[in-house]
Amino acid sequence: MTKFARFSINQSIKHGIVDGNTIQEISKPPYEDYSITKNIFDLSNVSLLSPVQPSKIIAIGLNYKSHLGRREIPKVPEPFFKTPSSLIGPEDSIIIPKEALDEKVIIQPEAEMVVVIGQACKNISSSEAMNYILGFTCGNDVSARDWQKNDLQWWRAKSCDTFTSLGPIIETELDHNSIKLKGYVNGKLTQEQTTSDLIHSVPKIIEFVSKFMTLLPGDVIMTGTPGDPPDIHPGDTTIVEIENLGSLKNYVEAEI
Amino acid sequence: MTKFARFSINQSIKHGIVDGNTIQEISKPPYEDYSITKNIFDLSNVSLLSPVQPSKIIAIGLNYKSHLGRREIPKVPEPFFKTPSSLIGPEDSIIIPKEALDEKVIIQPEAEMVVVIGQACKNISSSEAMNYILGFTCGNDVSARDWQKNDLQWWRAKSCDTFTSLGPIIETELDHNSIKLKGYVNGKLTQEQTTSDLIHSVPKIIEFVSKFMTLLPGDVIMTGTPGDPPDIHPGDTTIVEIENLGSLKNYVEAEI
Repeated sequence: MTKFARFSINQSIKHGIVDGNTIQEISKPPYEDYSITKNIFDLSNVSLLSPVQPSKIIAIGLNYKSHLGRREIPKVPEPFFKTPSSLIGPEDSIIIPKEALDEKVIIQPEAEMVVVIGQACKNISSSEAMNYILGFTCGNDVSARDWQKNDLQWWRAKSCDTFTSLGPIIETELDHNSIKLKGYVNGKLTQEQTTSDLIHSVPKIIEFVSKFMTLLPGDVIMTGTPGDPPDIHPGDTTIVEIENLGSLKNYVEAEI
Repeated sequence: MTKFARFSINQSIKHGIVDGNTIQEISKPPYEDYSITKNIFDLSNVSLLSPVQPSKIIAIGLNYKSHLGRREIPKVPEPFFKTPSSLIGPEDSIIIPKEALDEKVIIQPEAEMVVVIGQACKNISSSEAMNYILGFTCGNDVSARDWQKNDLQWWRAKSCDTFTSLGPIIETELDHNSIKLKGYVNGKLTQEQTTSDLIHSVPKIIEFVSKFMTLLPGDVIMTGTPGDPPDIHPGDTTIVEIENLGSLKNYVEAEI
């Protein structure tokens, strides 16, 4: 049961293992051949960052019945990409682009459980899939609904700068099949579901996606969001909270 | 007028500047602060690779009238993402996934002119856009048509491993507004257009995309394909040929 984090201290970015109120530096990212250093920091003295810098962010659409509305249950997982330049971490601000504010585009957070890949894999069966996972973290898949509906593809709808938040830690041991996932805006509970309600399970998603593309160490899969997410506006605070994974807080600001 | 390339020799991967039949090694990628080394190789002794390793591959849909069919002319550029794990280079093989062969999915190449970003940029006007470009290269945006039509989003349709080919060189000086773009399959001309027919120009695409997301050094924008691309099958050879940019050849194989 290891909790990996990525953090900054004195303008330097490091990886480490969280233990209570301290974090012990490791020499390399947790999906590489790292060694444990002697450097231990107080958690209160560091800033936690997104725990990974993925080369690929895959998100699964329509993966909870409660989020489907009138849409049919997908027979296979329905992935899409979020680009890595959209990534932020704990306590960072989601910046709503000027164009979205001008056009009054509806912006919503999506609370999601996120898989972090530990080893490169291609053509992996669902029975082997868990061996290629490093762990799990919390994610917020920020979405611009009007663009999601009207653009040819979901590019700015899902990948504006700051539209993907991950963190605070990667938990390596987690009974991910039945944990509570919650979303809050300004302290009010807005999304709540158990991961046992996922339509396509984590192993099945990995089996399906890896038929077509290699998953690389540090790549992430955002497993989908439940219910009807609320609208957010500059000044709001979002939280994604997952049992045993902690709480991912972000602020909402307007681009100036 | 500089021609940058990335290449491998003796199991080592390097960047360099092509001059006639030789390539002179540079110390870092061309969009970093490189110095010119004294190492000069014969081009015939090296293998050219994709000239960049982008963090983000943006492609523009429906950007030539001849490719629109009955679809309306888009008012703004219509980007989508191809994920970097799909990337191959000159002379590499496009591997058609087993699932595509089993389902008899139609696979087509798309010949495209590709922009390589040289400097990070966000919120750039079209009049400034050319300052942020390192140069241009050839690209093949391989597409699985049935999946493009039937999946929720274009993920495996455009981003299976080997579905993005770039190269052979990045040309820094190019009158990109009016050059011939050609696609061949097995030596037969299958696509032909002039880049002056682009619906959304390169500066306009950069202005639009950079309103929403930061373009990073080495990121690429594939500017769209003309006409009706042909089907390809294992055993075929594809070529994308662009005036003053050279010729990008790939082979087509079946996944085993």
